[in-house]
Amino acid sequence: MKKSFGATTIAYPTPVWVVGTYGKDKKPNLMTVAWGGIVCSNPPCLSISVRKSRLTYENIMLKKCFTINVATEDFAKEADLCGIISGKDVNKFAQCKLTPAKSDLIDAPFIREFPLVVECRLIKDADLGSHTLFIGRIMDVKAEIEITDEKGQISIELLRPLIFAPSTITYHGVGGCFGQAYTLGKSLLE
Amino acid sequence: MKKSFGATTIAYPTPVWVVGTYGKDKKPNLMTVAWGGIVCSNPPCLSISVRKSRLTYENIMLKKCFTINVATEDFAKEADLCGIISGKDVNKFAQCKLTPAKSDLIDAPFIREFPLVVECRLIKDADLGSHTLFIGRIMDVKAEIEITDEKGQISIELLRPLIFAPSTITYHGVGGCFGQAYTLGKSLLE
Repeated sequence: MKKSFGATTIAYPTPVWVVGTYGKDKKPNLMTVAWGGIVCSNPPCLSISVRKSRLTYENIMLKKCFTINVATEDFAKEADLCGIISGKDVNKFAQCKLTPAKSDLIDAPFIREFPLVVECRLIKDADLGSHTLFIGRIMDVKAEIEITDEKGQISIELLRPLIFAPSTITYHGVGGCFGQAYTLGKSLLE
Repeated sequence: MKKSFGATTIAYPTPVWVVGTYGKDKKPNLMTVAWGGIVCSNPPCLSISVRKSRLTYENIMLKKCFTINVATEDFAKEADLCGIISGKDVNKFAQCKLTPAKSDLIDAPFIREFPLVVECRLIKDADLGSHTLFIGRIMDVKAEIEITDEKGQISIELLRPLIFAPSTITYHGVGGCFGQAYTLGKSLLE
């Protein structure tokens, strides 16, 4: 028997994405979000959701660009801090000892130390209530060679991204592989 | 040095969500998506993205309702099969030996055997290109008692949801806990 938990934001997994933006005077900022995901294959797009009160909201509206810096196990503390403090008060890059790198394609900074970054150009925004949905067209994905496998593909097991659990507000790692998509289920056809 | 992978849908983690809908004649259908995420806290909303050619697209447009059945390690094969075959050809509930349960709140079926389901009412749709973004207002979250911890909270470690890796198109489990959000990062302020 299932128990009802009511109308609440519980679903798994949710990401831990550190959003990079520039503000007025080119000041770089960071903010961590768990409300996000890929939303379209062609053109490739992802979405993040941000409260209007956040500096990141202002910055995205101003520059129409943002980066997604995928938080990994090695940067759990930094990612968490970027979800606690405001860039209105603190330079989060400096506080986290992270280096802003200028993207060559968009007007937003990425985190040099993070192994995987996604550069996005805003194509749509929608006010949903507490949060505004920003849809970014993916302009480039940049990754360190160290997280690529022998075939040259980005490996989730080498990247070790964090996962956020909304019910317990905890961070988790990625476990073992359960098989290949578009293959695993075929045994149920026999 | 980072290597450029171009404009492609690579980001981590992405979910493995089996979408439940009714079609004409109340026929229940399932379809697995990896393009999705939570998009708003208040009202609580999530999004999924679906190609226009899919039966699930027709069904959501018809009924304005859908369920998210979170795929877990125990149901990796079933979730994968629901991403391979079409409900236009096959009854996916029957093929996967899963039971459709009528939601008491919305006009969509959930999977009785899956331990966590989210019931959604469509509030917005947007054509993004290859995919249409469907935003669903979360009306209820239903979970088996077996996946709740001693505090009564849903536990990601008991649920064991699957994670999809878009680059290698593989399914993965959830690993160990890395700490508490809004707490872990405070050590960097000292």
